[in-house]
Amino acid sequence: MIRCDDLLNGNFIFQDTEGFLFGMDAVLLAHFPVLRRGDEVLDLCTGNGAVPLIMEPAGRGKGVHFTGIEIQKPAAALAQKSVDYNGLGESIRIMEGDVREAARLLPAASFSLVTVNPPYMKSGHGLRGDLSSRTIARHEVCLTLADVALEGSRMLKMNGRLAMVHRPERLTEIFAELSANHLEPKRMRLVYPAADREPNLVLIEAVKGGRPGLRCEPPLIVYREDRSYTKELLDIYGMTED
Amino acid sequence: MIRCDDLLNGNFIFQDTEGFLFGMDAVLLAHFPVLRRGDEVLDLCTGNGAVPLIMEPAGRGKGVHFTGIEIQKPAAALAQKSVDYNGLGESIRIMEGDVREAARLLPAASFSLVTVNPPYMKSGHGLRGDLSSRTIARHEVCLTLADVALEGSRMLKMNGRLAMVHRPERLTEIFAELSANHLEPKRMRLVYPAADREPNLVLIEAVKGGRPGLRCEPPLIVYREDRSYTKELLDIYGMTED
Repeated sequence: MIRCDDLLNGNFIFQDTEGFLFGMDAVLLAHFPVLRRGDEVLDLCTGNGAVPLIMEPAGRGKGVHFTGIEIQKPAAALAQKSVDYNGLGESIRIMEGDVREAARLLPAASFSLVTVNPPYMKSGHGLRGDLSSRTIARHEVCLTLADVALEGSRMLKMNGRLAMVHRPERLTEIFAELSANHLEPKRMRLVYPAADREPNLVLIEAVKGGRPGLRCEPPLIVYREDRSYTKELLDIYGMTED
Repeated sequence: MIRCDDLLNGNFIFQDTEGFLFGMDAVLLAHFPVLRRGDEVLDLCTGNGAVPLIMEPAGRGKGVHFTGIEIQKPAAALAQKSVDYNGLGESIRIMEGDVREAARLLPAASFSLVTVNPPYMKSGHGLRGDLSSRTIARHEVCLTLADVALEGSRMLKMNGRLAMVHRPERLTEIFAELSANHLEPKRMRLVYPAADREPNLVLIEAVKGGRPGLRCEPPLIVYREDRSYTKELLDIYGMTED
């Protein structure tokens, strides 16, 4: 079923309830980089376009353009439907295509910011045959971490930024792949479900050709002790406390 | 001036108030690894012996032995004085020597746990001539991160652990140096001065020959909003709330 959700930022998003629904990770990623005037943003693995649709209002009046690339045709079509519905055709472009072919579809070294919410899980050997859209979005069957770092770096100008959300479990590998592609990690923030819990997400921003030196940011804590959202989470979601 | 401090764990420590005084980083490091029966522990850059003196009670009755190595003669002498004063000659051995020569002073691949609170700061080019003991303890003039990872790995048995405290700013480099020396990061914990502040310390445990996969732990928060210590910090310091 196709449903239309209010992003509470002035935009709406169409999602297929049988397909991949965007989650908190996409929301946190969209709020992590600070948009600069004239930014050309490329969102890899854009899915139904959640990241550019959430980021877009922050770029208004700053000449920011977004391009989203998605390998799965139905998701790319939904993303386009949302762009049209919101009247954002001038600021968000959706392309159906394989991230590994990005440099053939789009001019290399032409973006100032790459955002990516990639598949988190290693594919292993068990995944074969007819894969669901959720499996493709979650497992590295079509795109590995190494692909993301390579293609992200290729599409960025020098000093351009790559912002990624991923699992903390893979942090060692993330740093290694970024460094191998001249992407120097400069900002990191761990997302903890609660103040006494292990982090389940990490936000990272790397700079192409940047100098070493990582700034770790305050903990991003999702829930208070009483299981209500923290003030920061409510602000990110555009909600106010009751 | 030499002063004697109560570690609140049954041991006392002699420190030179004109030299390097151990800080919270040493205390947190000493509480980070879980001691196992029969552990042979090597503390690199042991200084006045704070890390083994803090860890020692947790190893009692488990056949755990500690060796501390320190390049600075006065600090090594103070560490020995504390060992003697506490009557710990059978469980803690202090050696004066250069960590870069560890494999000549001690049998390689013979330890199950290496602990290290290394100098945090890159030496740059300005440090020359007659260096104070504090400068040597804080700056990489006698020992770099690469040396720590190389010598730590050399001294560890296969599957042995290396536990380190360092600055989050250097996390990318820490992971790269550990990985280059077959030390796979398996546990990580960020230390935040307060719940809304950037972390200023990181605790890492790597396993020699370990498989990829990092477990990030809950945030370690030092102060509450009212600037009193959190319960966890008080427990680590062996203190109770007033």
